[in-house]
Amino acid sequence: MTVKIRPLPGGVTVSKGFQAAGLACGIKKDHTPDLALLYSELDAAAAGVFTRNRVVAAPVVWTRKTLRNSTLRAVIINSGNANACTGPEGMNNTEAMAVETARCLTLRKQDVAVASTGVIGHPLPMEKILPAIPEVTAKLSPQGSISAARAILTTDTFPKAKALEVEGKAGLFRIGGIAKGSGMIHPDMATMLAFLTTDAAISPPRLKKALREAVDHSFHRITVDGDTSTNDTVLILANGASSAQIDSENLESSGFQDALNRICLGLAQDIVKDGEGATKFITIRVIHGKKTQDCLKLAKAVATSNLVKTALFGEDANWGRIFSSLGAAKIPFRPETVDIYFGDIRIVKDGCPMGASQEKKAERILKKKNVQITVDLNLGAASAEVYTSDLSYDYVRINAEYRS
Amino acid sequence: MTVKIRPLPGGVTVSKGFQAAGLACGIKKDHTPDLALLYSELDAAAAGVFTRNRVVAAPVVWTRKTLRNSTLRAVIINSGNANACTGPEGMNNTEAMAVETARCLTLRKQDVAVASTGVIGHPLPMEKILPAIPEVTAKLSPQGSISAARAILTTDTFPKAKALEVEGKAGLFRIGGIAKGSGMIHPDMATMLAFLTTDAAISPPRLKKALREAVDHSFHRITVDGDTSTNDTVLILANGASSAQIDSENLESSGFQDALNRICLGLAQDIVKDGEGATKFITIRVIHGKKTQDCLKLAKAVATSNLVKTALFGEDANWGRIFSSLGAAKIPFRPETVDIYFGDIRIVKDGCPMGASQEKKAERILKKKNVQITVDLNLGAASAEVYTSDLSYDYVRINAEYRS
Repeated sequence: MTVKIRPLPGGVTVSKGFQAAGLACGIKKDHTPDLALLYSELDAAAAGVFTRNRVVAAPVVWTRKTLRNSTLRAVIINSGNANACTGPEGMNNTEAMAVETARCLTLRKQDVAVASTGVIGHPLPMEKILPAIPEVTAKLSPQGSISAARAILTTDTFPKAKALEVEGKAGLFRIGGIAKGSGMIHPDMATMLAFLTTDAAISPPRLKKALREAVDHSFHRITVDGDTSTNDTVLILANGASSAQIDSENLESSGFQDALNRICLGLAQDIVKDGEGATKFITIRVIHGKKTQDCLKLAKAVATSNLVKTALFGEDANWGRIFSSLGAAKIPFRPETVDIYFGDIRIVKDGCPMGASQEKKAERILKKKNVQITVDLNLGAASAEVYTSDLSYDYVRINAEYRS
Repeated sequence: MTVKIRPLPGGVTVSKGFQAAGLACGIKKDHTPDLALLYSELDAAAAGVFTRNRVVAAPVVWTRKTLRNSTLRAVIINSGNANACTGPEGMNNTEAMAVETARCLTLRKQDVAVASTGVIGHPLPMEKILPAIPEVTAKLSPQGSISAARAILTTDTFPKAKALEVEGKAGLFRIGGIAKGSGMIHPDMATMLAFLTTDAAISPPRLKKALREAVDHSFHRITVDGDTSTNDTVLILANGASSAQIDSENLESSGFQDALNRICLGLAQDIVKDGEGATKFITIRVIHGKKTQDCLKLAKAVATSNLVKTALFGEDANWGRIFSSLGAAKIPFRPETVDIYFGDIRIVKDGCPMGASQEKKAERILKKKNVQITVDLNLGAASAEVYTSDLSYDYVRINAEYRS
């Protein structure tokens, strides 16, 4: 039996038994939505992947703790304030958000995860958040995904949601997700949040393993060395509201892993497309290397180079900067066997330029919104792909004015 | 006897027995100077520090080879073209520059070092360079430092030169230097060149050791992890034209190491001040850490964060980004003991913000051109300092338009 995977409109509420809502409670000065709630009508197996930053925000500490039981019923999320570097008061405020959400939904506080994103170091305006929690609870609906997706955004310019319906060996089930971008393309510091739901049934350890694999090939392909912000959080809730039962036997044949990978990759790519000031979506592929990890590090070295990213903004086929960033990555390779392609135009062969006419062709490719750069090491069989964007005037403007 | 160190006007030609010159030979489209020559009338002990990039330009390969004999008589330098990623033709062109310079000065080709800086991957216009070498030789003069300093620049906005007269246990001697900035503040890829002279006599091994120490505390404090461009070169020539003899006994008491450190630090700081689009000179100090290397890595993590650098451009005391970049650096420290200062204004104590009035005061400090940020880890006795600048619109403009 082949697995059928169909895209669905919507996000976290395509999965049966999930509801969501979002509203503006006044954390953000511009009165845009800033409080979201995700709710599962049934107990849901839960797993998470969190920031590896040494400086960890209070909601991450709380949510990690709630996952010790491996089940969750709700996630309360605010944007506009990260509740990071806020000391013991920050922990108290996070717990108060969980407690109030639990009260409104008749849950235990340990069933409620919390996530926050926004500026660092300011106390949460609890006088605005606490009265809004009953309101957002009252707004919960099986159509609420888009409202929640909007309320988790910060400098993002569009809400990010993906959903799939999957029919495989385990039967029919759904996976959906919403995310907020880091704004930054390589979010070593800016916050990335993603919330995923499925109505398949799956044990917490298997769910965690599946989530890690999906995150490794998606959100981690847009990060610098896995460095993350104080608040980064990817959470998945699986409530088993469909008849599909995922186990280690049918993780592939059910379509579960594949669908989860696709959702995460789609959300990660949307985050890049919505990068602060981004005008282009750039895929950096490093192929024919000796080890996948080496290819990944080389691809990230190119993807994180300010010189490469400003050249791409300028639509300049400046392959010299690509070559130089590879050389600076401290990964073994042979410069004299390297080929570099913009799209399918080879502009470097055996470490040497192919000449002006190839560069002219390459510059036509750079005028497009989606640009693929391929570095062929001609050394082995490994490869890796990462996603980034260009570095524009708007990136500087957005980040210079962020708190004003 | 105390060492007396006095600043002198000038650069590489303050040292006796050195001459220099520069002119425009047409490599650069705008007809600004692009060919420089440095010449020592006597055999000079020589030492160099080069890029650690895996992709190494032809002139670096050549100059490393010339240093096997540990003596040099001349350095020929072009700007506007890096002669990197140019294959065997590039090596031939570099050698031809050395050969022609040697011919004009009646030297052996192995006495002539070569350096290049500019765009990568284009063949050198030898038809312009070769005829200009006799011309630049004819222009050599003991007052030629400024002319050479101008001819090595690329996106730099001012020539960089420093010189000191030193009187210590070994007698009176001079050290001088010229440099070109990377343009970029943390030159992981853009090229940095520096040429230093002294009329003290010193053996090549001691000279190399002294140079390494000086570079470690200057040019390497403005680089990312020592990653460097395809062309980075720091060269020193010591021709012994003064009576001062430096040996291992009097390296300190002669004032040699101290003066060399000061010259290198001065040039490195000028490079930062002239960083592409830089509006501010930022010193990042990490103090009271357990190990110097850890402090250095933490300071570099802050100094290389785009989010920190754009906030500084925006004169926003966004210490949260500083804190987050520290946390992402994978170096052990305790967030709850960290204090952060802008100038002498403490805005974070024990990992928590000091409040809005301190931030207001800090923002006044950010309006200045020179800003010092101190991170106090409160853990030990080690410290480190690095130098960077802000990230501005002009940085993007300069780098997006570089080759147009």
